[in-house]
Amino acid sequence: MESLSVDLVDKAGSRSYPIHIGAGLIGRGELYRPYARGAVAIVTNSVVAPLYLEAVKKASGATAQIVVADGEQAKGWQTLNQVFDELLQARIGRDGLLVALGGGVVGDLAGFAAAIYQRGIDFVQVPTTLLAQVDSSVGGKTAINHALGKNMIGAFHQPRAVIADVATLDTLPERELRAGVAEVIKHGFALDASFVAWLEGNIELLLKRDAAALAHAVKRSCELKARVVAADEREAGERALLNFGHTFGHAIETGTGYGAWLHGEAVAAGMVMAAELSQLMGHLKKTEVARLRELVRRAGLPVKGPALAPERMLELMALDKKAAKGKTRFVLLESIGRAALRADVDEALVRKAIVAAAQ
Amino acid sequence: MESLSVDLVDKAGSRSYPIHIGAGLIGRGELYRPYARGAVAIVTNSVVAPLYLEAVKKASGATAQIVVADGEQAKGWQTLNQVFDELLQARIGRDGLLVALGGGVVGDLAGFAAAIYQRGIDFVQVPTTLLAQVDSSVGGKTAINHALGKNMIGAFHQPRAVIADVATLDTLPERELRAGVAEVIKHGFALDASFVAWLEGNIELLLKRDAAALAHAVKRSCELKARVVAADEREAGERALLNFGHTFGHAIETGTGYGAWLHGEAVAAGMVMAAELSQLMGHLKKTEVARLRELVRRAGLPVKGPALAPERMLELMALDKKAAKGKTRFVLLESIGRAALRADVDEALVRKAIVAAAQ
Repeated sequence: MESLSVDLVDKAGSRSYPIHIGAGLIGRGELYRPYARGAVAIVTNSVVAPLYLEAVKKASGATAQIVVADGEQAKGWQTLNQVFDELLQARIGRDGLLVALGGGVVGDLAGFAAAIYQRGIDFVQVPTTLLAQVDSSVGGKTAINHALGKNMIGAFHQPRAVIADVATLDTLPERELRAGVAEVIKHGFALDASFVAWLEGNIELLLKRDAAALAHAVKRSCELKARVVAADEREAGERALLNFGHTFGHAIETGTGYGAWLHGEAVAAGMVMAAELSQLMGHLKKTEVARLRELVRRAGLPVKGPALAPERMLELMALDKKAAKGKTRFVLLESIGRAALRADVDEALVRKAIVAAAQ
Repeated sequence: MESLSVDLVDKAGSRSYPIHIGAGLIGRGELYRPYARGAVAIVTNSVVAPLYLEAVKKASGATAQIVVADGEQAKGWQTLNQVFDELLQARIGRDGLLVALGGGVVGDLAGFAAAIYQRGIDFVQVPTTLLAQVDSSVGGKTAINHALGKNMIGAFHQPRAVIADVATLDTLPERELRAGVAEVIKHGFALDASFVAWLEGNIELLLKRDAAALAHAVKRSCELKARVVAADEREAGERALLNFGHTFGHAIETGTGYGAWLHGEAVAAGMVMAAELSQLMGHLKKTEVARLRELVRRAGLPVKGPALAPERMLELMALDKKAAKGKTRFVLLESIGRAALRADVDEALVRKAIVAAAQ
């Protein structure tokens, strides 16, 4: 097991938390015990429950288990209220601990439930997808969706610990594994050139679910993300760099209807578009764009976006911007491993980048 | 206008906020302007809107107004979702400002909406009831109710400012004014003997809504509450002293069905019970209990609880305890102005105190 620490800006001590990474961790009681001041409740979904609920229950000493539906639809009011009903019926108090066992949806939902149940209780993330292990379980962002926008209702609520057990990835469907790899690639290209080199040498091992390779990819991703989150917990600036590929990616997800493309797949194609845009703006070399394309391809991820006209993509990005009244900002690459945030991007170049990515 | 400051424990600067107290403040644009980085939305209810919405709209430059139903029922999911729908339709962004214009229900609801809308936006409290001005608008507690418990879902989210305009109290129904006075009396008896003496000399002026008397009562209450909140934002200890009269009071509210007794009325009778208990335990003198009874009576508030058997009261307090898995702790008085938290209270004495209070 390897452990690293997320140290948050206001160094009040209690704001730091460990991320444990390794194989076979979910059954280790000592990883839960420090946070179980009162009763423990597990929130998981109907797919993960048959696989890992018993082990986590035993290790954590949980007395309540809340099994929600699988899928993005569970990230809404109704499921959130189901969680509250069951927490209250199980008499979980302010000293209770909530264990989020599952992928990004369970982590976001259960984390948000912990953030607002009795004005906030402790929670531990036990991510069981690669996407959740390398991305969503770290950083304290929790949320549910609203009919008018994804993740529109939420809170910053840091977990007390993250237990990333790479052995749980053995049961992950192939397509979801690859979608998780997209965020791993993102961390490399946005923040760490040497991690990109490591990925170029180990991508096949990762896809074969080699435990050591997975553990390294999770660890390095978490280190990179933790560093950024520590510097910018509330996403005022630097944290936005983690959104490399996401401006285009969100447009792809919305344009194709949520669920048709997995988030990681949309991000993969979105990264290629963002890289082409970076090249058109004179930052990235063509050979560097080619390295991204090649790694995405080897990961079995889409290099090209869906059949959406560039005009439609621009429209979707503008809509996305308006919904939250933010500015359309692009995370561009100055070089591999060095992302930068830019708001002053010419629309004609964006159109050109979308066309170039489709070649 | 008088202004005081709530300074929170982690002195990060941005965590402090002003409370402005005076007559005719809601129309002063300069009190809103420092916080209006983006669009401004007002949340109010159907009773307050016809009275003060236009003035606040003009002063704050609000472009959106959300009018919810009046009453405790509005503190639920449905109304919260109404607020989110309208905030999103009005395209209020992360830089938006929410103005909570109304009593405790609006403050709790709108404050909670601000806490979780897009993971938290700024808000300003404009309390228009005495209860909200002296109590609920200060301290950052926000919440909605759940079918299984009041204020079960919520967040700590401090306002950027509180604008307590005592002129708005002119339109407050008599009974609600008196209910607010209960919390003023509570602040005195729990925390400040000289404030009790002032109240004994000025209670009639307060009830006549003399602006200077109201402003002093609001200011002193806010000062006392702000001091406690600053020392204990998350209610680990000292903040519980503000619950003097509330353990009994909650039992009265639940036992009579929410709404039959106003919160302040239940707290008034609850304070007498808590004082009797303090006397039975040898802390408070009989003459001190008599002073509380007399002030409560002069304020037109109930000295005696409802016709609930002591056994039923004990049962309700135990239920209250179990719901949140907390311990039944009593806030007792060691003397006037010196409250203390006690968990080791003999049940027989509690029964006796309830009986004594009914004499």
